[in-house]
Amino acid sequence: MVKKVLKFGGTSVGSIERIQHVANIIKKEHELGNKIIAVVSAMSGQTNELIKLSKSISKNFNKREFDVLLSSGEQVACALLAGALINLNLNAKSWLNWQIPILTDGEHSNARIINVNVGKINEFIKDGVAIVPGFQGISENGDITTIGRGGSDATAVAFAKIFQADSCEIYTDVDGVYSSDPNKIPVAKKIDKISYDEMLELSSVGAKVMQSSAVQTAMMYNIPLEVKSTFTDRKGTKIFDQESIDYTKSVTGVAYSKDDAKITLTGVEDKPGVAAKIFEPLYREQINVDMVIQNISSDNKTTDITFTIKRDEVIKTKDILENNKNIVYKDLSYTDKVSKVSIVGAGMVSTPGITFKMFKGLADEKINILAISTSEIKLSVIINEENTLNAVKKLHTIFDLD
Amino acid sequence: MVKKVLKFGGTSVGSIERIQHVANIIKKEHELGNKIIAVVSAMSGQTNELIKLSKSISKNFNKREFDVLLSSGEQVACALLAGALINLNLNAKSWLNWQIPILTDGEHSNARIINVNVGKINEFIKDGVAIVPGFQGISENGDITTIGRGGSDATAVAFAKIFQADSCEIYTDVDGVYSSDPNKIPVAKKIDKISYDEMLELSSVGAKVMQSSAVQTAMMYNIPLEVKSTFTDRKGTKIFDQESIDYTKSVTGVAYSKDDAKITLTGVEDKPGVAAKIFEPLYREQINVDMVIQNISSDNKTTDITFTIKRDEVIKTKDILENNKNIVYKDLSYTDKVSKVSIVGAGMVSTPGITFKMFKGLADEKINILAISTSEIKLSVIINEENTLNAVKKLHTIFDLD
Repeated sequence: MVKKVLKFGGTSVGSIERIQHVANIIKKEHELGNKIIAVVSAMSGQTNELIKLSKSISKNFNKREFDVLLSSGEQVACALLAGALINLNLNAKSWLNWQIPILTDGEHSNARIINVNVGKINEFIKDGVAIVPGFQGISENGDITTIGRGGSDATAVAFAKIFQADSCEIYTDVDGVYSSDPNKIPVAKKIDKISYDEMLELSSVGAKVMQSSAVQTAMMYNIPLEVKSTFTDRKGTKIFDQESIDYTKSVTGVAYSKDDAKITLTGVEDKPGVAAKIFEPLYREQINVDMVIQNISSDNKTTDITFTIKRDEVIKTKDILENNKNIVYKDLSYTDKVSKVSIVGAGMVSTPGITFKMFKGLADEKINILAISTSEIKLSVIINEENTLNAVKKLHTIFDLD
Repeated sequence: MVKKVLKFGGTSVGSIERIQHVANIIKKEHELGNKIIAVVSAMSGQTNELIKLSKSISKNFNKREFDVLLSSGEQVACALLAGALINLNLNAKSWLNWQIPILTDGEHSNARIINVNVGKINEFIKDGVAIVPGFQGISENGDITTIGRGGSDATAVAFAKIFQADSCEIYTDVDGVYSSDPNKIPVAKKIDKISYDEMLELSSVGAKVMQSSAVQTAMMYNIPLEVKSTFTDRKGTKIFDQESIDYTKSVTGVAYSKDDAKITLTGVEDKPGVAAKIFEPLYREQINVDMVIQNISSDNKTTDITFTIKRDEVIKTKDILENNKNIVYKDLSYTDKVSKVSIVGAGMVSTPGITFKMFKGLADEKINILAISTSEIKLSVIINEENTLNAVKKLHTIFDLD
């Protein structure tokens, strides 16, 4: 007998028809003899609707009450799904955050699941299906909390870990992880197996199939994941640790991010602590710095630092850099229409010539590289935004992903 | 220092603007030094929307899950109102059914509040405002329940009783109890003070300002009520026990109900148990029988029984009466376009000639009386529906209510 955590996202339960469809998926799994815990998001649109209501009261809506408000969305979806399952003659039951309970710590809207009481649910799933709300829990003093990073995906992974489930399946509106964005690159292919690291690199650069922090948790506890479509019967993408994957290709996928901007500071004093001085005020203002590149200084006295941020934060960032007296540099320049294109693959390290092949491919397309950054399993370049799709297509082809 | 339970219905919290308006009402009450517990309904339309969702899954939606579903509506309204109050710099907090807890017994969708834990809320309202959800609680085994009869009004009265509040104010979309329906009888006047009994008689015949069962509970525990408008500053209607009211008028109001039908069975055997035989099968089919009139039999062997029901249940009722072999009678006749017009007043018993005055008034208008029924504080007649408004106007005038 296999114990499974199945997670259904907002679009998967976005209408009554879809909820009934999900009920049928669960019924099939249950009939196979599996023990099922289903983690459910709020119906798509619902959470945004609730956020809108709170914002029309105050942009600074109280965080405790915000969590009380938002958690109602998953409650509705849980009740409807449980009702639909009972209607199919299954023994199903919704379990709310406080009924389980799901214990969290950390602050409101950004809590973290620290424990889940397994007793009652383990007893119930011997023959019943437990429906639990994603994205929430209660704090030690009995307040409702919502969990920040990872949302319902994080709930699913936490349940898989704490209930020692045999698998954790993430049902969503795409049928897996692709070698690139299938909407833009029609030759993109679904990946059957991928490592946690590759998945993280792909999702952090735009392929948003699963919440990154949930993948990180799964990686930490080695919980096998599967991302699959609610709406087709096709096989999804399995996500394991690297060792379990037999690589035939050096590059797994090509990802890109849009709406980026690049800022370069030249003539920055080259001594310890300078980078910290630059990035501390940006961090305090919650500006999300992505790529940072610093070259070896040519004169041993000054250096140049380039970094990327989201485009809509350029003005704010410029203001901070220009007005903070602790930050000394000669010149500030920026390009606000750049994109980041990355090739990702756990097999890259062991394959020589990948870097050259990428640069050559871009040169053939006459695409200028503005900055380069590499990691163990990823190689990213910053290019002018207008070249994005050309670059992605070219790289997709030369690395045999079409 | 006065402890108050304030109840706000669905229309009172039906939009963000209205929630902010309610927050200002509560703020004023709080600034007067009152200790406030606010009982809140779901935003108007919300509960119906949730019922619709459940019905599209199944007409026989599981009752436990139905209560989980419905209770989310009040949760949303509580969080929004608490957030709005905090935004006005008040110390406010929403308390959900399980956080208090509100304990209920009885079945799902028809539970009854049996206890409320007062400790934490009494402590909190020393300087804060507690916002609690109407219409719900939890059962002994920790399931969410919704309370059937009385809804949020019943929650307000239960809280007023259990917290030993000094008053219980029902904020609604009308500004009190009227001597008749102000939409149809323009000369109808707002009543300043009314007894529980009169209120019950008036509301049971169409003046739906408060849930009757909540008024009954208030009467049982002698909890003073006040019905007032959320949208105007005008004084509302105070509801006390009869002894506290000094009657200057014998008749307090004129009420009427529409969509009634009258069924008469003639030649019914006149012996003990016959009425029970007739009404038991109707009760089992959930047909709501209103007025029942039985005359003294003329021949000591048979009698006639007349009763009223809602018009849309005539066919069903006729079927039952004609096909149940236990029910024996000579003839069945019915009129399906009748209405019930009632004069209500706790001072009626002590004022001679009320009955005569009513019948004379109707006769002057050439209105035929089809049946008559009286109680201590009410005198009702069944007439043809077309005469309803004429009758109400006439009675309103002759009993000095204009």
